Amino acid sequence: MEKTDVLVIGGSATGIVAAVTGKSSYPDKDFLLIRKEKQVVVPCGIPYIFGSLEGSEQDVVADAVLTQAGVKVKIDEVVSVDEKNKVCRTNDGTEIGFEKLVYATGSTPVVPKWLGGADLENVVTVPKDKEYIDEMLARFGDCKKIVTVGGGFIGVEMSDELNKKGKDVTLVEILPHILSLVFDEEITVQAEELLKSRGVKIKTGAGVKEILGEKKVNGVLLSNGEEVEADAVILSMGYRPNVTLAEESGVKINEKGFIRVDEYMRTENPDIFAIGDCAEKRDFFTRKLSGVMLASTGCAEARIAGMNLYKLSTLKTFGGTVAVFSTALGETAFGAAGLTESQAKQEGFDIVAATFEGIDKHPGTLPGTHKQTVKLIATRECGVVLGGEVVGGSSVGELTNIVGLIVQNRMTINSILTAQIGTHPLLTAPPTAYPLIKAAEIVAKNI
Amino acid sequence: MEKTDVLVIGGSATGIVAAVTGKSSYPDKDFLLIRKEKQVVVPCGIPYIFGSLEGSEQDVVADAVLTQAGVKVKIDEVVSVDEKNKVCRTNDGTEIGFEKLVYATGSTPVVPKWLGGADLENVVTVPKDKEYIDEMLARFGDCKKIVTVGGGFIGVEMSDELNKKGKDVTLVEILPHILSLVFDEEITVQAEELLKSRGVKIKTGAGVKEILGEKKVNGVLLSNGEEVEADAVILSMGYRPNVTLAEESGVKINEKGFIRVDEYMRTENPDIFAIGDCAEKRDFFTRKLSGVMLASTGCAEARIAGMNLYKLSTLKTFGGTVAVFSTALGETAFGAAGLTESQAKQEGFDIVAATFEGIDKHPGTLPGTHKQTVKLIATRECGVVLGGEVVGGSSVGELTNIVGLIVQNRMTINSILTAQIGTHPLLTAPPTAYPLIKAAEIVAKNI
Repeated sequence: MEKTDVLVIGGSATGIVAAVTGKSSYPDKDFLLIRKEKQVVVPCGIPYIFGSLEGSEQDVVADAVLTQAGVKVKIDEVVSVDEKNKVCRTNDGTEIGFEKLVYATGSTPVVPKWLGGADLENVVTVPKDKEYIDEMLARFGDCKKIVTVGGGFIGVEMSDELNKKGKDVTLVEILPHILSLVFDEEITVQAEELLKSRGVKIKTGAGVKEILGEKKVNGVLLSNGEEVEADAVILSMGYRPNVTLAEESGVKINEKGFIRVDEYMRTENPDIFAIGDCAEKRDFFTRKLSGVMLASTGCAEARIAGMNLYKLSTLKTFGGTVAVFSTALGETAFGAAGLTESQAKQEGFDIVAATFEGIDKHPGTLPGTHKQTVKLIATRECGVVLGGEVVGGSSVGELTNIVGLIVQNRMTINSILTAQIGTHPLLTAPPTAYPLIKAAEIVAKNI
Repeated sequence: MEKTDVLVIGGSATGIVAAVTGKSSYPDKDFLLIRKEKQVVVPCGIPYIFGSLEGSEQDVVADAVLTQAGVKVKIDEVVSVDEKNKVCRTNDGTEIGFEKLVYATGSTPVVPKWLGGADLENVVTVPKDKEYIDEMLARFGDCKKIVTVGGGFIGVEMSDELNKKGKDVTLVEILPHILSLVFDEEITVQAEELLKSRGVKIKTGAGVKEILGEKKVNGVLLSNGEEVEADAVILSMGYRPNVTLAEESGVKINEKGFIRVDEYMRTENPDIFAIGDCAEKRDFFTRKLSGVMLASTGCAEARIAGMNLYKLSTLKTFGGTVAVFSTALGETAFGAAGLTESQAKQEGFDIVAATFEGIDKHPGTLPGTHKQTVKLIATRECGVVLGGEVVGGSSVGELTNIVGLIVQNRMTINSILTAQIGTHPLLTAPPTAYPLIKAAEIVAKNI
């Protein structure tokens, strides 16, 4: 029987981070990461394989990240875990003993059972699987018309990238607007208009009823009776946590289907951890169960698990998911952190929200200046910031992280108003009209 | 006699922000801003007038910012203030009564008295004065060789912009490295190498001894005996606060020459405020007097003054200057917030510093990916972050603001390690190797 101190199951972003952070925290322990995939793709990079990149080879995480950190890697599949005796068995019959186990088994695209035609040729999902993606790429070569079902980030980014490659893309979303789980309506409308202006057709408020075709797909029937022609269909209708292995070994699964964990990412067995898409998520504000899957949040969980493997630290706990999202469509980027205005109202917060539209360089005559809009949502009673949304140029990613830090630090509108920010003509909005602070000013006035 | 409730003297960034924030906080009060300049230039934009922009007209702050906010503007110069009777007198003899007064009188370029030849033709400074700048632009038209004296931000940016326009530029700095009041040595070296590769000649460790020429400048004599030819010389040797008006009216001036103020930006007279380059600065960490002049810090002071004009709020005080700087040379941007490693050591902090070099998009095969380096400086005992330095692409401005917020919130290395950041292939570093967090990991390991 093989032996390791720490066994990490799963080799995508969170598995890597847990193993590397763990090894760095406990250098005397042996770490083994076991995964099915020969090569690991950068998960958030997948849509870009279909447009901006030249192929999936350009979106591969080098194993050197692991091996240089002193983590061993094994390409194999764990088929059963004996928690009591701390042994797992792999596909090829190998037994591996461990002291600590980390489930980083990720998630799988959802294909609803009721959806007829989902097994037709050229109907695909977007899994984190290089071979599958290479096959998709090959299939799409001859396709002219592509329908994307689901207007979340993956659906939107896939649509935009395929459109870049000259495909005729139609994006179908059952809700009234795309990206509406992350942004308030006025921002989703901006994203829709931009996407349309770039050539993507959008059909919102209409779900997919059936996928049409004989052997191969030739169209999609929508819930409103409309038919859309298609040579290929991408289903981006959400992801389901991969928990079968854990469940079969006796680990508890929550009502949303995720592996139950505590603030240190431990299951009820203190030697077994779970992180990333397969691990339970709770909302930062309400502690309610959440289903938000994000590589960046998963990596925070992974760091926390890695650091707490052998000794707990009260300073290193996971305080709940603050969803921090960003994306870009051409030159325009969109980001959000924390609650949207409509989410906050739905939860019952008494809030004040305000938006300021400015510019992302100064003076605005500088080449490459982009509009920059910041919306802030704060509680009326104490002025604590619950969330924010940002639209602008390439600085939106980090500006969204500023909002994320404001939320995580439970900063108030007053602390934003008195904060010192740095500004530079070529890099930021002007000091006199920095949209984040101007939005805070309007919130303060309306409180 | 004219009358206003609030009188703001000075029309650059901080005067504007104080008046606009004040009017927004006290809409029933009359606000009058009085300034000498017909048109106000965006101060940080000045270097870009000489390269990236087409002229000073493109770097003007529109008066609409003030008038739309309900602030009156008067182009005139206040020549005396009678604090007791709350009346000031302007250049044209007008008397203006006020309830509250805000000095936002700014700063003036320093020309050392010992420097011979500073009055020669084509020897200029960089004041916030549109007419002066227009004259400079005209003068530089025929100049081939330009020497910039002083390797701070203004000197570096002026040199780079003039170099872009095809001038033969030599930058002279008396300290061993340029930008060394803001960055640690290894970063200043990167900035120097980049600036050199773009065509600017750099002479460090050598001050200017004398400016040479008859009527017009023809060269510069350095302290090491070397002579550098020059058709024009730019002196960017620092700025001196404009306090004569305040001093003559009886306001106290501190030993560094700034108007003394408290945490609410009030002078000893509770109806008289001072903000921006003319107002006293204290360091965030030590409360020592400081001389750092920054538009973005000044604007934070201005907001605080504006909000506290008629009633103090303990939530709206100025906690001391956290210098947050950024600049860009071509595609590469540099930023810093808080203390550098060498400053922290000099103050006596027991610190741990670490640097991580990664990329600012992911995968790194995406077009436009830039290296991104983050250095963090934290106290060894409690892990509180004292400062950070960043080199990378266009997201450096906001990433530096993240570091600035970390410092202002007195966040610890542990709180960075457990923080949730958002990542996106086109906008940020990868979630598995976000340089800010990786640098924090190394600090944690070395604590």
